[in-house]
Amino acid sequence: MAILVVGSIALDTIETPHGKAVDILGGSAVYFAYAASFFDRVNMVGVVGEDFPDEHVKLLHTRMIDTEGLQVIKGQTFRWVGSYEGEMNNAKTHSTCLNVFENFQPIIPEKYKNSEVVFLANIDPDLQIGVLSQVTKPKLVVCDTMNLWINTKKKSLTKLLGMVDIAVLNEGEARLYAGTQNLIKAAKHLLEQGPKYVIIKKGENGAMMLSSHGFFATPGFPIEHVKDPTGAGDTFAGGLVGNLAKWGKVDKASLRKALIYGCVMASFTVEDFSLDRMKKLDNKDISDRYLEFVNLTNFHF
Amino acid sequence: MAILVVGSIALDTIETPHGKAVDILGGSAVYFAYAASFFDRVNMVGVVGEDFPDEHVKLLHTRMIDTEGLQVIKGQTFRWVGSYEGEMNNAKTHSTCLNVFENFQPIIPEKYKNSEVVFLANIDPDLQIGVLSQVTKPKLVVCDTMNLWINTKKKSLTKLLGMVDIAVLNEGEARLYAGTQNLIKAAKHLLEQGPKYVIIKKGENGAMMLSSHGFFATPGFPIEHVKDPTGAGDTFAGGLVGNLAKWGKVDKASLRKALIYGCVMASFTVEDFSLDRMKKLDNKDISDRYLEFVNLTNFHF
Repeated sequence: MAILVVGSIALDTIETPHGKAVDILGGSAVYFAYAASFFDRVNMVGVVGEDFPDEHVKLLHTRMIDTEGLQVIKGQTFRWVGSYEGEMNNAKTHSTCLNVFENFQPIIPEKYKNSEVVFLANIDPDLQIGVLSQVTKPKLVVCDTMNLWINTKKKSLTKLLGMVDIAVLNEGEARLYAGTQNLIKAAKHLLEQGPKYVIIKKGENGAMMLSSHGFFATPGFPIEHVKDPTGAGDTFAGGLVGNLAKWGKVDKASLRKALIYGCVMASFTVEDFSLDRMKKLDNKDISDRYLEFVNLTNFHF
Repeated sequence: MAILVVGSIALDTIETPHGKAVDILGGSAVYFAYAASFFDRVNMVGVVGEDFPDEHVKLLHTRMIDTEGLQVIKGQTFRWVGSYEGEMNNAKTHSTCLNVFENFQPIIPEKYKNSEVVFLANIDPDLQIGVLSQVTKPKLVVCDTMNLWINTKKKSLTKLLGMVDIAVLNEGEARLYAGTQNLIKAAKHLLEQGPKYVIIKKGENGAMMLSSHGFFATPGFPIEHVKDPTGAGDTFAGGLVGNLAKWGKVDKASLRKALIYGCVMASFTVEDFSLDRMKKLDNKDISDRYLEFVNLTNFHF
């Protein structure tokens, strides 16, 4: 099933204990689209400035990602400068220049409107709702968000949660939204807002999922050489949603497997800056790591 | 197989966001012994003062825990006063009165000396080594430790690591010992010191195990109502070691299952203060939660 993603496209400058990279390709829509493209067709909507290197668009095309929805407008591309220290669990933002992203109005091209799967990456929840009004009855809608919108647009975000099938948040966001430190309570509170499934990302500690059928929990894939955690969450969503689209159904078994594929894709992303690790992947690398994941978590002998 | 445990016995005063409890039964040997007693026979060595309530000893006897190794000496029992806030991942120590525990010299009763399984709970590594010199060829030796000994007695601790089969540490201790933030690197470094298996406890995020056969990772059992996390790590070790003793073998399958039983026992302990939740357990509660664990982590359909 075709996947529509709407989100940010960025040029990131990132420093981690393992190096520094300047103006590298990033953004939630980019990480998501690239990861999902290993599983199904992706239609991408986002905005860049005139300075956006053409090689990045070409890179997306090598994965058959459709970029008709990429708006190129006068000005500079969204830029984020950040760093990570120690365990690299939290990014420190040094500067955020929204540039052309500041007034981003997602316009869904006609040919994308019947995309069966929609991923609303982290943008203003009012824009996310606006995207849903432009698409024709998608079979699966998944959303992400961030602290900023929880703090400034909680009402809109809550409305959005009532319109999606799956809400994907990280643990800090889930705690902030629900106003509780206990993640299980937070997940239950989020589920009460309307989504059928709530998935909470826990970085190196894996993820958990809650639905009316109960809990699912998984550890993260152990990675010894984490170089840059940027984009891990969006890559996770790409693996998850890409798999659900590929299999064409959303049930207990497909969701759990898809979530593991999300962890697998995220585990690759953190091994290098930008898309550098994913660029080297083929399908066998992905299925091999999935099997490794099965092996390292199995205790049902 | 009989299990010998040597560790602390304490009267704890604990405050959490969910209440306060004064002079309640605690200590690493107590939590370990009580949890392990659901699976096999436990011989306990420790020290208390004359003020130690007899009802606590009787409680241990209800679980058939042998207390011949319990030294009752003149003075006050070890007391710890601590509190937890927010996510309750870290205890804040308000006071530690070692009292009779300060000069604790473990004496292993004659009838304990052929215990097949030995758990060296968190005490001075020189004393842990001293315990090993008193026992006759145990089949399985497992140790725990804490930040204090890593900071003050690293050489002795390193010697001990070369003498045990399994080292169980929490994530902070593993990072401190290895001098790295990356847990996988930390586990590898610990394994290089000699133990066959390194198990790293991650609180609500479960645990991981490393051996020459590779990794095993599990999430924690999701607990909505965490009342007091004290003793979770020792209870985890009790479930783990108790199961290995019960099955009488240490291989890939038994270790992974035993580790899950460790998570199960820890998940009960945190639901109430002291041993209050474990006191209400029967074997069916434990096997039911184990099955729940299988169910909530399974993605191999």
